[in-house]
Amino acid sequence: MFDPARLTYDARGLIPAIAQDAETAEVLMMAWMNAEAVARTLATGRVTYWSRSRQSFWIKGESSGHIQELVEMRVDCDGDALLVLLRQTGPACHTNRRSCFYTAIREGEEVEIMDPMA
Amino acid sequence: MFDPARLTYDARGLIPAIAQDAETAEVLMMAWMNAEAVARTLATGRVTYWSRSRQSFWIKGESSGHIQELVEMRVDCDGDALLVLLRQTGPACHTNRRSCFYTAIREGEEVEIMDPMA
Repeated sequence: MFDPARLTYDARGLIPAIAQDAETAEVLMMAWMNAEAVARTLATGRVTYWSRSRQSFWIKGESSGHIQELVEMRVDCDGDALLVLLRQTGPACHTNRRSCFYTAIREGEEVEIMDPMA
Repeated sequence: MFDPARLTYDARGLIPAIAQDAETAEVLMMAWMNAEAVARTLATGRVTYWSRSRQSFWIKGESSGHIQELVEMRVDCDGDALLVLLRQTGPACHTNRRSCFYTAIREGEEVEIMDPMA
């Protein structure tokens, strides 16, 4: 059985989790999990992070409805990063954009490349 | 002009950088950059990380030949994570696999889902 304790967490007990749309392969966001958030995500199928600002579990979409349904969790070679394939309802970003990575560096300037969802 | 100093770095002066194949959208690896690594990546077009274990700059592929050519750098809404779209030569992973995320959690077990490249 997979044990979340076998992963490598940082000094705060956290591991970075990359959220990727399982269908389009778009990278939607990056957030953090602790061992219990990893366990809850796997047990419930609802992607659950640890909010560093609120210092609490963060069941993505619980208040906004923009939930993330787990498709598959992957672990990297060092066991210190997670790739979470998921189905995203609505925008992943709190700015209402599909992805948090909506700013690109082009010709030395930051440009927004994605509009908020309607 | 984009200034790497405007990004948010952690207590070690680092920001997570997600490497994504610009063509296939496969997530290849996650590593870390400091402000100087961000600047060097943008200036040279060769993706350059900060190696936490060696405490030195790490021009990806410099010794292995498995280089990463920058296509576009993206910044997330909080300015504390980077998505690096790139062209990867050969495997991104030191295990010779295309991606470092070659382990999946399926039915509660860790399974390898990718073979090393020939």
